[in-house]
Amino acid sequence: MSQPARVATTSSNLIELECSACGKKYDASQEQHLCTCGKPLLARYDLKRAARTFLLETLKDRPRNLWRYAEVLPGDPPVSLGEGMTPLVHAKRLGASVGLGNLYVKDEGLNPTGSFKARGMSAAVTRARQLGAKALAAPTAGNAGGALAAYAAAAGMAAVIVMPADTPSANVMECQAFGAKVVKLNGLISDCGKFVAENKDREGWYDVSTLKEPYRVEGKKTMGYELWEQFAGKLPHVIFYPTGGGVGLIGMCKAFDELEQMGRVGAERPRMVAVQAEGCAPIVKAWEAHQSSAQFFPNAATIASGLRVPGPLGDQLILSMLRQSRGTAVAVTDNEMLHAGRELASLEGILAAPEGAATVVAAHILAGSGWIKPHETVVLFNTGTGYKYSEAWQKAFEA
Amino acid sequence: MSQPARVATTSSNLIELECSACGKKYDASQEQHLCTCGKPLLARYDLKRAARTFLLETLKDRPRNLWRYAEVLPGDPPVSLGEGMTPLVHAKRLGASVGLGNLYVKDEGLNPTGSFKARGMSAAVTRARQLGAKALAAPTAGNAGGALAAYAAAAGMAAVIVMPADTPSANVMECQAFGAKVVKLNGLISDCGKFVAENKDREGWYDVSTLKEPYRVEGKKTMGYELWEQFAGKLPHVIFYPTGGGVGLIGMCKAFDELEQMGRVGAERPRMVAVQAEGCAPIVKAWEAHQSSAQFFPNAATIASGLRVPGPLGDQLILSMLRQSRGTAVAVTDNEMLHAGRELASLEGILAAPEGAATVVAAHILAGSGWIKPHETVVLFNTGTGYKYSEAWQKAFEA
Repeated sequence: MSQPARVATTSSNLIELECSACGKKYDASQEQHLCTCGKPLLARYDLKRAARTFLLETLKDRPRNLWRYAEVLPGDPPVSLGEGMTPLVHAKRLGASVGLGNLYVKDEGLNPTGSFKARGMSAAVTRARQLGAKALAAPTAGNAGGALAAYAAAAGMAAVIVMPADTPSANVMECQAFGAKVVKLNGLISDCGKFVAENKDREGWYDVSTLKEPYRVEGKKTMGYELWEQFAGKLPHVIFYPTGGGVGLIGMCKAFDELEQMGRVGAERPRMVAVQAEGCAPIVKAWEAHQSSAQFFPNAATIASGLRVPGPLGDQLILSMLRQSRGTAVAVTDNEMLHAGRELASLEGILAAPEGAATVVAAHILAGSGWIKPHETVVLFNTGTGYKYSEAWQKAFEA
Repeated sequence: MSQPARVATTSSNLIELECSACGKKYDASQEQHLCTCGKPLLARYDLKRAARTFLLETLKDRPRNLWRYAEVLPGDPPVSLGEGMTPLVHAKRLGASVGLGNLYVKDEGLNPTGSFKARGMSAAVTRARQLGAKALAAPTAGNAGGALAAYAAAAGMAAVIVMPADTPSANVMECQAFGAKVVKLNGLISDCGKFVAENKDREGWYDVSTLKEPYRVEGKKTMGYELWEQFAGKLPHVIFYPTGGGVGLIGMCKAFDELEQMGRVGAERPRMVAVQAEGCAPIVKAWEAHQSSAQFFPNAATIASGLRVPGPLGDQLILSMLRQSRGTAVAVTDNEMLHAGRELASLEGILAAPEGAATVVAAHILAGSGWIKPHETVVLFNTGTGYKYSEAWQKAFEA
């Protein structure tokens, strides 16, 4: 491959932003948040142009982080800490226990700041800096705060992180370490989101709340591109995704659609399984009631702090993607997560976040019921490292 | 590149083991530990044969973990959790503070189990399984225990981890999670090492103590190969390495020698800087006294648990490599580490282990003194994630 060809591959093909509900278009070269109709905007690319260089073969020369997918990401010099390209581990011993011969764990805990949140924040902070933002603010249920604080630090920007007062201590500590301003509220992430919305104009904050700005989902969609690349151009049959805000699930489905439009996959899609906690399961409740949007889940409580999102903004997108992919939604208890975390650790050497452990429980259920066939290729997403949940695991493993 | 050529690259060229001191040779197809003269054995390869396929260009097709360097690693189906290929972050903001334009952080915290120890254990457990071991035992100052426990779990083998009673709680918890047997002793890693040595024969343990088996250093040397690959075939001018047992430093120097023998680099070498804690600095003391071996360091104490190695077995190798590379050795205080950890986090978004933060202190010292020129390419090794040192950082960041 000649050097000029290689250079050409690194340019973005971003055209515009489009409302995910009403289809209204927005200028991507300006700061944009929600559509006037109140729904999230999604980034649109010239995929015909992108397809010229977006090939398994050309990707081999690219940087070993998510910015390797430059054609289908917003441009600009990336704010990068080496996010993405996480291991896809063939979990043979766990697979034997679950009854699946082709079970894989995508270990997102090996991202900077220890979670998949790094992907979204790398993209969001990159764009925010380019668009002239000075101070970034976001609510968080846990890991997103640390990721925003880290990328803001790397970009030399101020960050304000608003979190529930009972967020795990590792999440508070990391935000302080990265020099962010931490605001603790007695409430849930939904209350924290309101706080950001109410104060951002007066304080001059750029609101990085997930789906309220259009680029975090772009960073997260690279999980889908990576599966395609790591499975050598194929997609798995089933994906289990721990679903709080659900943006990772939305992002992956967007990636698969883009891959199809570029001619890299056909119409086949992985069946998407949204995994939630019994103590906060708005998507599962809506799914079981055959609804197209979710109700606010009252008294949300679970040790899987990332799943404690009682009113996800992307509810309609998530539910529609579960339907379209012939997927499903499953709720599991905290106790089941703790047991499954121990199983995953002792069989595969992966210390997962409780959110990741939840997918193991769900896999047992759906393999046991026959919903998954034993030969199917199945991916469990461990969205974060277990080391940030030391308090929870300590109790579980000493018991 | 044709398919057969690709397959050929994945075979090991391991020939034998050789004593690092007296040169005596040993059969690599048998379980081996120390030489009869008491010194560590090192793996030797047919590097002429390895050189045929070991090229920057052919490496592009390889798995994205350390097993991509198959020609110069022991063979066998690897026990892998996706170790290696960690980010090399250009630390521009920290570089401006230190006065170095080409300052990089190699972030080993993004390895499985959150530290560079994963590299050594992936190689050691792979070999131990192949050689028929049933139960693996090792002393640890902190992160090595978790790494051994994780790889043993992935391999379906038993593990016994012997650690000082005051090892950080995250290290105890992870070993329990991975299903290992944990033995806590009132003492230091040297006492734990004695415990393993005294009990291994009776208990039937395979001793995985660093340098007492020849393959952990093989896994760790891949840090040197990665620098060569990430700098596109060049080596940096200076490497700062937090030195407890010092096996990472020994391994990298071994990698550079192998690269030269394969014709991939010339005689030039990075100047190696061993960074230790004031409270446990046997190498620094020996270096400053121009000695070729180190004395046992009494009353070893530091928050950087990985540096709490009062009598490293590889002392002579480390000191000889510092000399040969025209490097040096620097000791820093715990308080300096904590300050530097905050600087690294707030300028670069990297929450390091105190061991990694120690290299920032040392870089300030040696850039300030003129020992490093402002244009030189300098790499700081962050050997582990800061999330496993929550207790230490929490206090530091709240102060």
